[in-house]
Amino acid sequence: MRAATLSIGDELALGQIDDTNARWLADRLAELGLYRDEHRTVADDVDAIERAMRELAAGGPRDVLVVTGGLGPTADDLTRDALNRCCDHGAPMVEDPLARADLDRWFRGRGRAMPTSNLVQALRPQSAVCLRNPNGTAPGLAASIEHAGGRSTRIFCLPGPPREMQPMFVADVEPHVRSVARGRAMPTVAVHSFGQGESTLAERLGPLMDRTHDPSIGTTASRSIVTARIRTSGAPDEARAKIDAAARLVEERWAPYAYARDGRSLASVVVELLRERRATLAVAESCTGGLVGSMITEVAGSSDVFLGGGIVYANQLKTRFARVDPSLLEQHGAVSEEVAAALALGIRSEVGATWGIGITGIAGPGGGTATKPVGTVFIGRSGPDGTQVRRFQMPGERDIVRDRSAKSALQWLRFALLGVEAPFLWGVERA
Amino acid sequence: MRAATLSIGDELALGQIDDTNARWLADRLAELGLYRDEHRTVADDVDAIERAMRELAAGGPRDVLVVTGGLGPTADDLTRDALNRCCDHGAPMVEDPLARADLDRWFRGRGRAMPTSNLVQALRPQSAVCLRNPNGTAPGLAASIEHAGGRSTRIFCLPGPPREMQPMFVADVEPHVRSVARGRAMPTVAVHSFGQGESTLAERLGPLMDRTHDPSIGTTASRSIVTARIRTSGAPDEARAKIDAAARLVEERWAPYAYARDGRSLASVVVELLRERRATLAVAESCTGGLVGSMITEVAGSSDVFLGGGIVYANQLKTRFARVDPSLLEQHGAVSEEVAAALALGIRSEVGATWGIGITGIAGPGGGTATKPVGTVFIGRSGPDGTQVRRFQMPGERDIVRDRSAKSALQWLRFALLGVEAPFLWGVERA
Repeated sequence: MRAATLSIGDELALGQIDDTNARWLADRLAELGLYRDEHRTVADDVDAIERAMRELAAGGPRDVLVVTGGLGPTADDLTRDALNRCCDHGAPMVEDPLARADLDRWFRGRGRAMPTSNLVQALRPQSAVCLRNPNGTAPGLAASIEHAGGRSTRIFCLPGPPREMQPMFVADVEPHVRSVARGRAMPTVAVHSFGQGESTLAERLGPLMDRTHDPSIGTTASRSIVTARIRTSGAPDEARAKIDAAARLVEERWAPYAYARDGRSLASVVVELLRERRATLAVAESCTGGLVGSMITEVAGSSDVFLGGGIVYANQLKTRFARVDPSLLEQHGAVSEEVAAALALGIRSEVGATWGIGITGIAGPGGGTATKPVGTVFIGRSGPDGTQVRRFQMPGERDIVRDRSAKSALQWLRFALLGVEAPFLWGVERA
Repeated sequence: MRAATLSIGDELALGQIDDTNARWLADRLAELGLYRDEHRTVADDVDAIERAMRELAAGGPRDVLVVTGGLGPTADDLTRDALNRCCDHGAPMVEDPLARADLDRWFRGRGRAMPTSNLVQALRPQSAVCLRNPNGTAPGLAASIEHAGGRSTRIFCLPGPPREMQPMFVADVEPHVRSVARGRAMPTVAVHSFGQGESTLAERLGPLMDRTHDPSIGTTASRSIVTARIRTSGAPDEARAKIDAAARLVEERWAPYAYARDGRSLASVVVELLRERRATLAVAESCTGGLVGSMITEVAGSSDVFLGGGIVYANQLKTRFARVDPSLLEQHGAVSEEVAAALALGIRSEVGATWGIGITGIAGPGGGTATKPVGTVFIGRSGPDGTQVRRFQMPGERDIVRDRSAKSALQWLRFALLGVEAPFLWGVERA
């Protein structure tokens, strides 16, 4: 059961706007049991659109092709014409009475006269049906391309704006897809980890990652988070049980780095662990400048466990908000093991939290020295069992150093809450 | 001068991750004078990749095809094989000595043994050249497909991770594209604004946005930032002058909301204005929890002007770090005009900064009341001319409310630094 998607528009081809439809559709189609194995974006050119429709339908052939965009009232909206060429050899189009009535009602409801250019939106190829659009003027279109051997591809043309496209997909495309998928589903699950590199983690999975393994497991890395993506297909309950079992296996092999599934954030896992333990947290952030606090407070309900802290960018604030002894700053420098420890312990005491985190480092591009190059970061962690510091050497640009520092602090705190310890790929182990 | 792009990967085809490369490449290619008129995404299937490469190269034919992804060391990385089939009929590949040396050096530099699986990354089709990758293990590849009539398409295969792909594009693809574009350019410029809605701003542009207008101007909106995208084509200097003039016009019509061009952040503009005025800033953040600090410290060199502040999530921290009188909190509640003003003035005095910002609000989903529903946010601004507060009603989910609050604080501070004042679309004007 395979599907393809096609996005139409100069602004998409030129990269001027993000194509959020393509990803949303792939996700929904997979959930419904159809594997979107190809996507194309083409410019507002009727020949290019027609060719893409034909090629995407023919591939296999595919069961479903979902096209978005190019249904507007202007001269550069050419999806309707391309569909007419594919399905009805370019025969004259007909006005759809229901679509025309909807269009009249849309403008009447807004007290506006309908520009004549909009009339084209009520036209459809003779073999096509119109799909009603309660959220805009462009009705969708559905028609079929017949292939040799009696098979056919159903083509759905939907408007480009997501708030028009998505309800139309749910109302008109989903029922068809469900009937095509005939009770089969293609569920996916993602397991996220932080702290080790993709190759090391892939090695831990070994033959689980073979192309022939079912469920299939692949890894991706984004902003230092390595994710295992697991999928299979089959009867819905059975397929779901299969990927759940595989996800548990990945989580075991990736312990303690695996922290959550399906897009859940590291911060939300930390908030939950703190809540379970009736513990609270305060932070003192220098080089991350509020990033840890921002990640934590992104989680709804984080105020149960997060008290706040200091953005201790200037040295005087390290002393004022986190009680760091000025002599420590003088003696060891603001970026040092001693100051990281003092920040963690100091903010914890000042705020009266169960846990304190202190972060100080050189995010770059300036400020590096021979002994403390750009990317040097010290993280202090203070809790019921005392205060520890770890030194890190983060590779990459300023935003990568900061992002990885904040996530390392959260992961290291998670380790403490779970009572485990493990090295980070970018950790500098001290003699 | 036309180009196409091709993204490889099951995780992209299935919609599990965002394809940011496709858009970035279109943007860069346009800047260099090449119109990317088609993009495809295909799964990890060597036949599908080969077919897509051939078809995308043949279309026209195109001058350049940029492929991203599928160059890793694992069995599902098939771009190398597909390129070999297209350009060398699948002849045996050869090990590239330089690529091998780079690979050895990469692992040696990290004190790790190279997994044997990585050796495949030093292989190349006989007619291809390897492109060095200083930021990862996967070298890129460049080769040509010859078409009838003596024309050819240059195919560049780049690694998928953006921080590896982008520098390789700049180093190895750009010089080729410049030579192909032969002195013609298709430059674009983006003008970013914050504080008003897309339709209001589009109305201010009027006929400038007509499809026939040269340069062409379109608007897009993302995370409350409305952007005008301006493009034209022609001889580089002339085209550049034309879009610069159009950008200045847009900036005038969008004053004072337009804050920067071409991806520059609002925070970096604020940092520059503070630096010019030899002023400093401190923040006291409640509902944004460090987001403003995080945005500001993302800017390299922000330590010149940003002293830090407090993440004053719990009420005791509002009092302790920003000197908010506990009776104010009792009398008016933490989310109030009075507390926002006290936070701004208090953090400014406590830290000794020229400017102080205080933010308190209800980000949701819980915590709303009849008089202060979810999305109610008060921002205080304290500076040399006194302390002001504005009330906002932000629509949307928690992360949107927080993001828009942080950006509103920065934009409103920018207004003060420029000596202007203007309403926000989501501002609540008080009697």
